[in-house]
Amino acid sequence: MHPADEPAARLGIATVCLSGTLEDKLAAAAAAGFDGVEIFEPDLLASPLSPAEIRRRCADSGLSIDLYQPFRDLDSVDADRFAANLRRAEHKFAVMQQLGTDTVLVCSAVAPDAVADLDLLAAQMRALAERAARHGLRIAYEALAWGTHINTYERSWEVVRRGDHPALGLCLDSFHILSRGSDPAGVLGIPGEKLFFLQLADAPRLRMDVLQWSRHHRLFPGQGAFDLPAFLEPVLTAGYTGPLSLEVFNDVYRQSDPRRTAVDAMRSLLALREQVARRAAVPALTTAAVPPAPPALAGHAFTELAVDDTSGPRIADALRALGFARTGRHRTKPVDLWEQGTARVLLNAGAPHPGAGNVAVAALAVESTDPPLSAARAAALCAPILPRDRGPAEADLAAVAAPDGTSVFFCRTDATGGWLADFDRTPTADGGLISGTDHVALAQPYDHFDEAALFYRAVLGMDPEPTSEIAAPFGLVRDRTVTSGGVRLALTASLLRRGEWAPGVSDPQHIAFATSDALAAARAARAAGAPILDIPGNYYEDLDARYGLEPDLLHEMRALGVMYDRTPAGEYRHFATEVLGGRVFLQVVQRSPGYEGHGEPDSPVRMAAHRRRRLERSPALAAG
Amino acid sequence: MHPADEPAARLGIATVCLSGTLEDKLAAAAAAGFDGVEIFEPDLLASPLSPAEIRRRCADSGLSIDLYQPFRDLDSVDADRFAANLRRAEHKFAVMQQLGTDTVLVCSAVAPDAVADLDLLAAQMRALAERAARHGLRIAYEALAWGTHINTYERSWEVVRRGDHPALGLCLDSFHILSRGSDPAGVLGIPGEKLFFLQLADAPRLRMDVLQWSRHHRLFPGQGAFDLPAFLEPVLTAGYTGPLSLEVFNDVYRQSDPRRTAVDAMRSLLALREQVARRAAVPALTTAAVPPAPPALAGHAFTELAVDDTSGPRIADALRALGFARTGRHRTKPVDLWEQGTARVLLNAGAPHPGAGNVAVAALAVESTDPPLSAARAAALCAPILPRDRGPAEADLAAVAAPDGTSVFFCRTDATGGWLADFDRTPTADGGLISGTDHVALAQPYDHFDEAALFYRAVLGMDPEPTSEIAAPFGLVRDRTVTSGGVRLALTASLLRRGEWAPGVSDPQHIAFATSDALAAARAARAAGAPILDIPGNYYEDLDARYGLEPDLLHEMRALGVMYDRTPAGEYRHFATEVLGGRVFLQVVQRSPGYEGHGEPDSPVRMAAHRRRRLERSPALAAG
Repeated sequence: MHPADEPAARLGIATVCLSGTLEDKLAAAAAAGFDGVEIFEPDLLASPLSPAEIRRRCADSGLSIDLYQPFRDLDSVDADRFAANLRRAEHKFAVMQQLGTDTVLVCSAVAPDAVADLDLLAAQMRALAERAARHGLRIAYEALAWGTHINTYERSWEVVRRGDHPALGLCLDSFHILSRGSDPAGVLGIPGEKLFFLQLADAPRLRMDVLQWSRHHRLFPGQGAFDLPAFLEPVLTAGYTGPLSLEVFNDVYRQSDPRRTAVDAMRSLLALREQVARRAAVPALTTAAVPPAPPALAGHAFTELAVDDTSGPRIADALRALGFARTGRHRTKPVDLWEQGTARVLLNAGAPHPGAGNVAVAALAVESTDPPLSAARAAALCAPILPRDRGPAEADLAAVAAPDGTSVFFCRTDATGGWLADFDRTPTADGGLISGTDHVALAQPYDHFDEAALFYRAVLGMDPEPTSEIAAPFGLVRDRTVTSGGVRLALTASLLRRGEWAPGVSDPQHIAFATSDALAAARAARAAGAPILDIPGNYYEDLDARYGLEPDLLHEMRALGVMYDRTPAGEYRHFATEVLGGRVFLQVVQRSPGYEGHGEPDSPVRMAAHRRRRLERSPALAAG
Repeated sequence: MHPADEPAARLGIATVCLSGTLEDKLAAAAAAGFDGVEIFEPDLLASPLSPAEIRRRCADSGLSIDLYQPFRDLDSVDADRFAANLRRAEHKFAVMQQLGTDTVLVCSAVAPDAVADLDLLAAQMRALAERAARHGLRIAYEALAWGTHINTYERSWEVVRRGDHPALGLCLDSFHILSRGSDPAGVLGIPGEKLFFLQLADAPRLRMDVLQWSRHHRLFPGQGAFDLPAFLEPVLTAGYTGPLSLEVFNDVYRQSDPRRTAVDAMRSLLALREQVARRAAVPALTTAAVPPAPPALAGHAFTELAVDDTSGPRIADALRALGFARTGRHRTKPVDLWEQGTARVLLNAGAPHPGAGNVAVAALAVESTDPPLSAARAAALCAPILPRDRGPAEADLAAVAAPDGTSVFFCRTDATGGWLADFDRTPTADGGLISGTDHVALAQPYDHFDEAALFYRAVLGMDPEPTSEIAAPFGLVRDRTVTSGGVRLALTASLLRRGEWAPGVSDPQHIAFATSDALAAARAARAAGAPILDIPGNYYEDLDARYGLEPDLLHEMRALGVMYDRTPAGEYRHFATEVLGGRVFLQVVQRSPGYEGHGEPDSPVRMAAHRRRRLERSPALAAG
């Protein structure tokens, strides 16, 4: 099957993206709905299946084999070595014929004997293409970003152009091109029929050796910092008609369950294809199924905590001390509604949760202008739709599972028959110091951090900010905020395991409530007995050294445990409760216009305070 | 207490090296026997202890406070900002006086307003030193490798020289100097009294942004690629008399138990101090206690496997099929001795082990020319000495615990009354195909990988080779071999967790036996029913493509499951058994002179074969 005969909307994945044996990988790719695969040679070498058996297994699974890869270091200034390399290639052509694939990826050489002279190099590539053509095969030549002499697509195209053979064309790889800052618009000058193959990968912007960057840190499109739509558009416009195929080398995905990775990968391609289809009239994509555009979000509707008999009262006490009132009880389920302003918390004593005494964020609900459409989009982007009985609501609330297992509900709180109608509800008078929900922070398993960012971006249409890193007392923490229309989620992940030696303070989640007066809110909360964290005097002495704050303000912040951050754009005042029964604590924050963070510089101080509270409760945990 | 009044052999550690709160860190540093600490400011800011209380806690723990750090971005082309920075410094001077420390680390500026003009910069540094001196304090100025204008020690020395103030001196940091490839010999031109402080860190050679390299990948001396002895010698020769103080930013140590990290750190300094004392007549070090030199090693004495009723017979069957004979039984313990040539395996049915049906390497024993001296050195380098009843032997065998918990015995097998005398032993005739033990591979917990390399290097005097990386089917595996006098250990570690989704094949250990004829050994082993792994035909087709091996040889290797690797220096033939009851498998290897690896390129093929065997036993584990 010839990729050029297929519609460009076909979706593929290189087996190197997935963990496991070749058999594991093919099963995972097929289950996720991919149309084709690139067979990565080391996967084949370790497989007991003969190439003919692999061909049959792929056909039985609905997978085409779009590419065999990679063939390395073909060209050589040493004629004997070049002859040996051609002989090696003949072996691989035989394998390809048994596999039933017609295209092999040939990388630009990295060996010391690589050919620098473009005419000699073109002649050697032509000799290879000539041999391939005799078997009905063709060569897709790729410039590795670290190739000795050929390291840009402009150079590899020059070799292909001079080689001038119908079986010799280009493989374009978004990583190799974008990592070097090349302009993909130049692809428009290449005839479409010479674009034999296209490999797609995203990556974070890193200042490091490009080989190491490529081998460890590639990501699926939409997870990193590259503009993949701007890359793909000229490639399709130039006339590329082969599959959109992922090639991602990533330390996490190399060791994760390939069935899960393959779904994540599929979501990335569906979202990328949609973005390009929306931005340009690319003929190849107009027929592709495009999911409905994400309806606008309009803030947090509610956050649901799973509680039990021990943790429920503790959370309820804390909410009450923060000025919340219990305004309703679910008509049929053991779920209480607590409200203040538009901040709403559900305490669900009937939800499954991690263990006795524990509290965890079970669900977050966002206001959508069109909840059914939000749900339809989520389904189109491979989000697991949750059964209706998982959530607390009986109204027609659609929910999907986020990568960390949190349920995400799409709501219209103000709609007739909305979710509030499920509650026997007695709204209280306004006038509290808390006006709504500022953000929810969800600690992610490290393996699902990039998947989560893509999930919120693709499924909910949110905007991920760049990833930052916090040098926290118990290990580094990555932090990436996603925002949209008043919804703000802080996704965090611990590198390695983060302080398992200091249990009880790892990976907390929190709900942050908005106030316009953090000092007044802290004063009221303390007066009402809320378990507010005390913050060390050393912290306030340093605030004074850095900002020279007005002495009365500094004194009051210190007395109340209110922390302070400032950027050129604005300031942030915030305080936190202790961890309330396992994983969750509460925050109250005052954000000035322009301040876009969530007090990250203060996180280490807050974490150390959480550990102290924990040690006060369980002194046996102390080190030393 | 003034560092310059102390002998140079004092050992210190920056609190940033350790995980936890300041209280955790001080306790860990004191327990490991450090003389002093550098207080890292963020640790102080998060502590509820006032500076005076921290001073008392350190004094009570026997720790001096040698440095307060860091003070960033002092100098500025903006006069108002410089004035604000001086004001900020006065705040910190007050903190230092309460702490009772007299030296503050000032880093070269990285801000856009940093001063480029050396005379202006020197004047600003002098102004700071003048203020410090009024409080009896002094400034140790350090060139960050990524400082805007000052990024080498030669430049920072020029600033200090022009600043010309008694309270202004240098802080030298081995990372900042060696990461840029600067020659430390230039330090000899700096007056010793101007060397106010010395920070020590090692690192692997990485091609990446030096800031990220520094913040994530520093190591303790002896764990990385830097030549720390060659750095330290000129610093001491120049007249530095302050502490040898560690400053290591490392992702693993940031999140590991600080009590363990502090011992690892102490071992690194003891070994470094010893190396310098042995290589040069540095007056400051001649009085330092130096551990006894490591006695020469002379091969593997035995490897002990912990087995149970299920796994014991399975291992015994495999050994028998490989040509081993059961030659002895321990006089008092349920331990069998199996021998072939000088290869010896103890099967210990009485040792604690991980679980039913499991096998694990419980101990490795090395031939030492002076076992008691080996043990004395180990004790001097903080290795945990194991109680005598932990091992299988009753002879006077000294054993220490390696970082992964494996017992390491020091033996002289040929000595009168050696460990063999503990066995009722009937040696068999020679003539088997296996002549001895080639190597033992020990999968390390990722967190202890660098610690283990330093342990074998410092405690046993072994030579670590550079770390390599294997793209294994279930995740990346780091591999570092340590060798000495016929002892070869392959230390491996999985990045992240490596394929927990595919249980049963993660983190295996193996014993590799040496043969001079791998084909004959494989033939005999298969004939005797050894559970030898089958290797896919695709692997042999690729061998043919790459090496054009003689057809009969290729055919026989394929029939026998013998794998093949070749380097310019030599070749390697090897085969492996299936995993025998949990964690351990056996290998037989034929190594030509000059081949220094252990068949790493074949590891992925072997791992995939192990997974297949596992799935054949438990088909429910298959993906898909």
